Amino acid sequence: MPKRPTILHSKIVAKSRLFKVEELQLKFTNGVERTYERLVSQGQGAVMIVALNAQEELVLIREYAGGFHDYVLTLPKGLIDPGEDALAAANRELMEETGFGAHRLELLTRLSLAPNYMGHKMDVVLARDLYPCKLEGDEPEPLEVVLHPLQDLPRLMASDDFHEARSIAALFLTREKLEYEKQQQEYNGD
Amino acid sequence: MPKRPTILHSKIVAKSRLFKVEELQLKFTNGVERTYERLVSQGQGAVMIVALNAQEELVLIREYAGGFHDYVLTLPKGLIDPGEDALAAANRELMEETGFGAHRLELLTRLSLAPNYMGHKMDVVLARDLYPCKLEGDEPEPLEVVLHPLQDLPRLMASDDFHEARSIAALFLTREKLEYEKQQQEYNGD
Repeated sequence: MPKRPTILHSKIVAKSRLFKVEELQLKFTNGVERTYERLVSQGQGAVMIVALNAQEELVLIREYAGGFHDYVLTLPKGLIDPGEDALAAANRELMEETGFGAHRLELLTRLSLAPNYMGHKMDVVLARDLYPCKLEGDEPEPLEVVLHPLQDLPRLMASDDFHEARSIAALFLTREKLEYEKQQQEYNGD
Repeated sequence: MPKRPTILHSKIVAKSRLFKVEELQLKFTNGVERTYERLVSQGQGAVMIVALNAQEELVLIREYAGGFHDYVLTLPKGLIDPGEDALAAANRELMEETGFGAHRLELLTRLSLAPNYMGHKMDVVLARDLYPCKLEGDEPEPLEVVLHPLQDLPRLMASDDFHEARSIAALFLTREKLEYEKQQQEYNGD
């Protein structure tokens, strides 16, 4: 692994309610100096939930996305509250956004968003053994819940309103994991 | 598709060299009002390149990522220059970052990053029929180029420094496309 550049100095150059921009003055090991900007991570992190029912259908939501000023089809997700771990946050967000809880929760992976200018990573949690349970969340309006067979990813990818890289990565990784589990079960003669 | 909320008013609340934060006052169709913040997209967009050589090896780069203040393994990518289209930008970035050009370039997909608070989409370009060609870019230091077999995605996913959702989504979509192409070739008796 190469040796990291030295941070000569850093300062906050812009700030809003949700965002904080930090400027870094960097000196690379070859002597080149550059000014970078990055968004500073705030809070306890975030979770995204791949929830699968007994029919191996995904529990998706359609919600308003401010970035596009439009509705998008995506996976349930949200911020981890202080004192919560990722699995507890995942189950709470799932209950708030979809009306399901999960008896079986496990960390699938951690995904970064844009490493060049954001330090964020999101925990992706696989949720199975679902049961109906609705919690009140902070959504401005009820979310539409959409079920979609995991095995039919190509049709989902072809939807105009399904385009978020983290969701796509999470679903392919889920499919890989389930295929691996099935192979293991066959190998073990289950 | 639900009816979008009304933007009652909007204003820029923070601004740096690279980032611009816009505040939106929204009224949802059920009457609920909320204040949102989003990053405003600037420039002509960006491209990410999945480059495959004749041995079906991926051309990856290891580069310094300011967000993590560390080196990450990722796909070549960069901003589209004024007057460029996505395919031309992809070929230029590929030459600058990896020392390869491509005779065959096609748009694979468009991925969003964080639709709730960013309007960005990135064009993902599949590049094949590679040839050696090095262009000088604006990198502060030479990038390490890493070849990895497309068929061995699980080992890549297991790398500590490979975690970017857009790269993972792009590679699974590439594998799907190549499998489809091979099935079509078999079907056509090629």
